Amino acid sequence: MATVPLLTDEQAGAEALATFDDIRAKRQTDHVNNFWRALAHDPAQLKAVWERLQAVMAPGALDPLVKEMIYVAVSVANGCSYCIHSHTAAARAKGMTPAMQAELLAVIAMAAQTNALATALQVPVDDRFLA
Amino acid sequence: MATVPLLTDEQAGAEALATFDDIRAKRQTDHVNNFWRALAHDPAQLKAVWERLQAVMAPGALDPLVKEMIYVAVSVANGCSYCIHSHTAAARAKGMTPAMQAELLAVIAMAAQTNALATALQVPVDDRFLA
Amino acid sequence: MATVPLLTDEQAGAEALATFDDIRAKRQTDHVNNFWRALAHDPAQLKAVWERLQAVMAPGALDPLVKEMIYVAVSVANGCSYCIHSHTAAARAKGMTPAMQAELLAVIAMAAQTNALATALQVPVDDRFLA
Amino acid sequence: MATVPLLTDEQAGAEALATFDDIRAKRQTDHVNNFWRALAHDPAQLKAVWERLQAVMAPGALDPLVKEMIYVAVSVANGCSYCIHSHTAAARAKGMTPAMQAELLAVIAMAAQTNALATALQVPVDDRFLA
Amino acid sequence: MATVPLLTDEQAGAEALATFDDIRAKRQTDHVNNFWRALAHDPAQLKAVWERLQAVMAPGALDPLVKEMIYVAVSVANGCSYCIHSHTAAARAKGMTPAMQAELLAVIAMAAQTNALATALQVPVDDRFLA
Amino acid sequence: MATVPLLTDEQAGAEALATFDDIRAKRQTDHVNNFWRALAHDPAQLKAVWERLQAVMAPGALDPLVKEMIYVAVSVANGCSYCIHSHTAAARAKGMTPAMQAELLAVIAMAAQTNALATALQVPVDDRFLA
Repeated sequence: MATVPLLTDEQAGAEALATFDDIRAKRQTDHVNNFWRALAHDPAQLKAVWERLQAVMAPGALDPLVKEMIYVAVSVANGCSYCIHSHTAAARAKGMTPAMQAELLAVIAMAAQTNALATALQVPVDDRFLA
Repeated sequence: MATVPLLTDEQAGAEALATFDDIRAKRQTDHVNNFWRALAHDPAQLKAVWERLQAVMAPGALDPLVKEMIYVAVSVANGCSYCIHSHTAAARAKGMTPAMQAELLAVIAMAAQTNALATALQVPVDDRFLA
Repeated sequence: MATVPLLTDEQAGAEALATFDDIRAKRQTDHVNNFWRALAHDPAQLKAVWERLQAVMAPGALDPLVKEMIYVAVSVANGCSYCIHSHTAAARAKGMTPAMQAELLAVIAMAAQTNALATALQVPVDDRFLA
Repeated sequence: MATVPLLTDEQAGAEALATFDDIRAKRQTDHVNNFWRALAHDPAQLKAVWERLQAVMAPGALDPLVKEMIYVAVSVANGCSYCIHSHTAAARAKGMTPAMQAELLAVIAMAAQTNALATALQVPVDDRFLA
Repeated sequence: MATVPLLTDEQAGAEALATFDDIRAKRQTDHVNNFWRALAHDPAQLKAVWERLQAVMAPGALDPLVKEMIYVAVSVANGCSYCIHSHTAAARAKGMTPAMQAELLAVIAMAAQTNALATALQVPVDDRFLA
Repeated sequence: MATVPLLTDEQAGAEALATFDDIRAKRQTDHVNNFWRALAHDPAQLKAVWERLQAVMAPGALDPLVKEMIYVAVSVANGCSYCIHSHTAAARAKGMTPAMQAELLAVIAMAAQTNALATALQVPVDDRFLA
């Protein structure tokens, strides 16, 4: 259960509704995710996050699927259940196959393990890693 | 400063030294990173991590550079300074350009931000994200 | 579901019950939150946490509402679902308006984002920040 | 040591330099923090973070000092050394007294402790905390 | 709800099924936990984790119950709900009494608290702690 | 560098000094760790943490060395460098051998890895783990 009500279109103010409409148009779907409905209590924040998200996740030097998998990785490390579900779904929608997902998880698990070891051992950074 | 001495080749036991040699051979370098030298106090762990790492990071459904960038993302979220330095260097060695690094960081920052918002709002997972 | 049973008044021992009664008296309510009922398996810990909590959250150089919002911020960053719910409710009870909550979340999200960037970039601390 | 060079004014491109100048003007200082110099490799990200930061940290329903203390709290929970130093300094510049800092730390410590207990016990959320 | 279907014996491939059978034989139970059923989509990862887990958790310089309690401590700090439940159950099965669990939680809570304080204060490491 | 000056005996107030003296007496050493000197700006917090620490870490259902290793595990998962150094040193002083340390680290690494996998897979808790 959210710490704020999820706003329906009727409950959202004009500014939030404009962002809902933009989400619908850009994503070509009638569905607006719960995340945006929860964020709609702060229309300025809703708009800022939605607009920055589009810029960040657009094709560029990295392709959108790679970006989604990086997003999943961060969300796992941060333990955000909602984000793991939503970005795993988004990665699938962008072409992540079961084999790719398996490798993504294997890398996340490997990193978590060596992160813990390097931290426990307080390993000093090798000079060669410093630019 | 590490919580254990970093073992030189002379100090490492035969089992650890064999892994050091394998690292040198596979990576085609004389240098053995501090991480492995710290881990050498537990030769079985050293060997297990090194062997699993090679399997996980090998080319597969995802290419090695993508895997390195996912590794960096997890290391940032876990706050592992050593890992951030070493895997950023590894990603560069595998072809990460400044533009790619900038996008990697932008995705990490975006994910950190929405992770925090979804967690603060305790947003329930949309039914459509459930398989 | 908790990893221990939540103790009812009947199940709690005399020492835990005394703390329950103190919670009821100080908070002027008959309700004892699940957190305290779970903690009651260790009456000494229950008492220590409850007493320290009162001292820490009392009015002082910072007002109690500011303290509750700081508590929410830490709970979000630590991903503690129970704590996010209970301290968001407590902050509201102490006067947090929707506008204040929106700003609290915006700061949390901003901090999460720049935390990730500063960590990813391993930015060295400016001399001027050192006392 | 940063994972990227800190860009001097001479090394920064025109777009980044414009943001540096805006930082100098708004903060009424010649000094540009290392964070911005590291971020300057991605001028769009630099500008987006700087502009959003000003909007989020401006006076509103919460006063700027309260916001800085919340920022410190998140940075501590995320273990971001740079952010702890820079926002502790910023909070002092905005009026945080030693007594306020002591209370801030006491709340952070209290929250960390009860976060751990509630998570270890997996305490279910009380119905009364749900809106 | 998992981000992948939990594979039944019928759905698991031959390689995963062989690991399921090994789990059943070693643990002397017909039950295969959800964790392994979720991991079975990547039979190589399933096998690697299961085999390494047995080696790590076997009696050695530390007894298995101590290892389980350390496992619980890490899982709490990482906020992994599944792991907290499963390893708390495992610790109980290996002899953790309510008194031991209470002390385990007290240490976890104490550590969380002083971790936060040392991080907030950015306390430099005493020379005497360096080997 | 700490975010507050480390107080010498001369700089500490009477209340903090009394706690310093108690630390010296109980630990039978003249040395007072940096952690306590940083915490001395808040004498009430210093005293509360020191007294609770003694109670929590005293011999009980768990022996003090086991408690120190659990403390290290939590500190690693929370990424607290100071705490990792100080409690690794304390564990050694209480009898942790290199073999025990190696197993401690192996468990921490194993837990970090499976925590990440269970979180990434969002594995639902098995009914049998619920009391």
